[in-house]
Amino acid sequence: MRVGVLGARGKVGTEVCRAVEAAPDTELVASVDAGDDIEALVHSRAQVVVDFTHPDVVMDNLRFCIANGIHAVVGTTGFDQSRLDQLDAWLADAPGVGVLIAPNFSIGAILMMRFAAQAAPFFESVEVIELHHPDKADAPSGTARRTAEMIAAARRDAGSAPMPDATTTGLEGARGADVDGVRVHGLRVRGLVAHQEVILGGAGETLTIRHDSLDRISFTPGVLAGVRAVADHPGLTVGLDSFLDIG
Amino acid sequence: MRVGVLGARGKVGTEVCRAVEAAPDTELVASVDAGDDIEALVHSRAQVVVDFTHPDVVMDNLRFCIANGIHAVVGTTGFDQSRLDQLDAWLADAPGVGVLIAPNFSIGAILMMRFAAQAAPFFESVEVIELHHPDKADAPSGTARRTAEMIAAARRDAGSAPMPDATTTGLEGARGADVDGVRVHGLRVRGLVAHQEVILGGAGETLTIRHDSLDRISFTPGVLAGVRAVADHPGLTVGLDSFLDIG
Amino acid sequence: MRVGVLGARGKVGTEVCRAVEAAPDTELVASVDAGDDIEALVHSRAQVVVDFTHPDVVMDNLRFCIANGIHAVVGTTGFDQSRLDQLDAWLADAPGVGVLIAPNFSIGAILMMRFAAQAAPFFESVEVIELHHPDKADAPSGTARRTAEMIAAARRDAGSAPMPDATTTGLEGARGADVDGVRVHGLRVRGLVAHQEVILGGAGETLTIRHDSLDRISFTPGVLAGVRAVADHPGLTVGLDSFLDIG
Amino acid sequence: MRVGVLGARGKVGTEVCRAVEAAPDTELVASVDAGDDIEALVHSRAQVVVDFTHPDVVMDNLRFCIANGIHAVVGTTGFDQSRLDQLDAWLADAPGVGVLIAPNFSIGAILMMRFAAQAAPFFESVEVIELHHPDKADAPSGTARRTAEMIAAARRDAGSAPMPDATTTGLEGARGADVDGVRVHGLRVRGLVAHQEVILGGAGETLTIRHDSLDRISFTPGVLAGVRAVADHPGLTVGLDSFLDIG
Repeated sequence: MRVGVLGARGKVGTEVCRAVEAAPDTELVASVDAGDDIEALVHSRAQVVVDFTHPDVVMDNLRFCIANGIHAVVGTTGFDQSRLDQLDAWLADAPGVGVLIAPNFSIGAILMMRFAAQAAPFFESVEVIELHHPDKADAPSGTARRTAEMIAAARRDAGSAPMPDATTTGLEGARGADVDGVRVHGLRVRGLVAHQEVILGGAGETLTIRHDSLDRISFTPGVLAGVRAVADHPGLTVGLDSFLDIG
Repeated sequence: MRVGVLGARGKVGTEVCRAVEAAPDTELVASVDAGDDIEALVHSRAQVVVDFTHPDVVMDNLRFCIANGIHAVVGTTGFDQSRLDQLDAWLADAPGVGVLIAPNFSIGAILMMRFAAQAAPFFESVEVIELHHPDKADAPSGTARRTAEMIAAARRDAGSAPMPDATTTGLEGARGADVDGVRVHGLRVRGLVAHQEVILGGAGETLTIRHDSLDRISFTPGVLAGVRAVADHPGLTVGLDSFLDIG
Repeated sequence: MRVGVLGARGKVGTEVCRAVEAAPDTELVASVDAGDDIEALVHSRAQVVVDFTHPDVVMDNLRFCIANGIHAVVGTTGFDQSRLDQLDAWLADAPGVGVLIAPNFSIGAILMMRFAAQAAPFFESVEVIELHHPDKADAPSGTARRTAEMIAAARRDAGSAPMPDATTTGLEGARGADVDGVRVHGLRVRGLVAHQEVILGGAGETLTIRHDSLDRISFTPGVLAGVRAVADHPGLTVGLDSFLDIG
Repeated sequence: MRVGVLGARGKVGTEVCRAVEAAPDTELVASVDAGDDIEALVHSRAQVVVDFTHPDVVMDNLRFCIANGIHAVVGTTGFDQSRLDQLDAWLADAPGVGVLIAPNFSIGAILMMRFAAQAAPFFESVEVIELHHPDKADAPSGTARRTAEMIAAARRDAGSAPMPDATTTGLEGARGADVDGVRVHGLRVRGLVAHQEVILGGAGETLTIRHDSLDRISFTPGVLAGVRAVADHPGLTVGLDSFLDIG
């Protein structure tokens, strides 16, 4: 598979280039960054493009790819509904082309969220702990909020009862933040990278699902999975999980 | 739902009786143990029977239930293929009756095994740790062996590569037991009850799925789930997981 | 060693009686509860008494023991400074007698707190997570508060810098409760018993100290340790840790 | 404090140089590697040298430092008894000079080992799990072996009973390796770096001490602690722990 990378000299793009070169079934045919000519994608006959650029340029990049029949796997952020609608419109005129927009390429994180939501209706209690380095600006993390929302939605759909909690006295903040009725706790400890744990409990037992992300390169297997599958999924797809053939 | 319990005065049966009485949608109408008349199930118009008795008597119990149109949820052990074939034959003559044979009613354990097998093909490495009290006679535990077999089967089906392991020197036993190519480690520590952890890892990240069973009553929610669903699954079902509506 | 138990028919006292009988070097010579004659301690020539009774009666019990030259190991709560002063005064007249007042007899909990405080000055960050069943009324737990206070005191004595935390946006409660500058997070999950984890982190590494209390009997080894050592510690001692010969 | 680094261009030496420059109370005055003139240490008036070089050259380096009255903090490996005896002899002629030889500068690892050994006599059972990336050649790790030996020695000194283990049937290797009677389990999982867990258990409770080393720089705080303290410890010291003022 002939792959081009947009944002090829960025931190993430550099790792993507390395992974595309290392995999036996993908070939890096174009590395494009700010200042380079995007026509290189066409000249090199790239079949799939990976875009880790910037919200300011990603739409132009995608218009070009779609117009030239190149599939795209996109990790750049900033996609709101109007952008997704625009992509849908462009793709309507390019029936064979697939575009994947994914907020998270870590397969471990995707599975953690999915399993947590699937298991949530089977237990009385579910809480989320996220643990990060202390230079992080937001608490809880975006992934923890999203996980809690998915858990809450799954329990709502299943008609689960509210979680038991007899707390009547205590210190402010001791029970964490409330995200749609799910308690979320954020730790900031030097030496940590990015970690999350979901604890589910019922009579006499608990189930714990934990994801530890220790290195930036954890997203590369997910990017490669997207590259391999995007041609078989014409049109617009949001979220890598729909490409993963789980169970 | 009118429920009878066979083996009602055993350790497990006692908890089952208590759980059936406590649940809002089930009613305990018959408690039968060795020496009692099994006809009580018919007189009390039990719709479902829960059987935690003994391999020596369970087949007689089930022939009686099937003949009388009573569904059965069975936690008694000792079912080999010939017994399952016998049940199939009896059920062929009782088209509306459902029988569930389950080796494990802990929903946490069932989900742990299922998630571990689903996730296994997405990672380079998978290992299993089981931790129990030191009075246990077998190592590794039956659940750990079964988990490893499920992981190995899932990876075989997906065409996963063998796991990386550069170990060349060491002490005997340091890398655990080999179950179908999956390493399994058994700890025996006073104070523990029954715990298992599956660690899956790929480039830069790990996913950990852990089950802690701290009290015998952890199986009662699974038994109740079986009681509620068995009437809707006529014929023979092996394993509670096919009754759980996951994801 | 001849041991009497006060509060012998209570939940805790029952376990203490059992442990005293089971240990090879202790003998249960008197079991006293409300309505029984405390003189039984003298008639049975008890050398040490274990008291798990009630704040209303414990001072009378101890006055009796001290007056009769019987050592005491006390798990009953409610000791303020004035009570401790009173005990000191009584013990001044009974020079050989030892009394141990301990808020916590779990050796695991005592070591967790001690190690956490010892390690705290060597790391940039320290946070505490406590996890309990959801029927608990207070959050955070008393043990977690005490642990955080000990950590804060150790860091103050060592002149440690404040912990790093770049959090600027977030949800209320996400960063837990603040106990003397140490963040404490409380989870309430069905199936849990009583658990606590202290996470310490510095550049590139973390140290985690975790205590899991799964069964009420976890305090009995600590009670026996107190029984064996109290005769060698005449006067008043508060806290079992000073009896433990650590390192 | 004026610090010189030997092996300054190696992986570890580079991090040491960076840490010495970053700390407020240390100044990097000489960076020496193979091919450079070691006299630079004298010309720059270094007070302390950090040596992360090679077993082939470290003894020459130390002879030079001792002869010139420069203290040394040494992470280079390969010190057997005859080398330590040689250092003692050289130091006898340089009464004010201190040399620290440390196999491990990670404060987290040192505390983990120390706490595990201190706690070991208070519990019935102790086992060790070490978890590393799958490119590691030896199993179990050297740190895990050393930890198990320290645990075994502490229990021997305390007269602890052998650990309970009722295992009678099982698979080869399931119970791990036996190091002086302490079971050690080694996992090799892609995505992991270097992790170790010691689980201690008694009636109804467990204490777990875990060290996670996620980044090479975890040793730099220990090196700086050595640099700051070595001048106050004339003569030869083996092991950083004797410099740490714990509890």
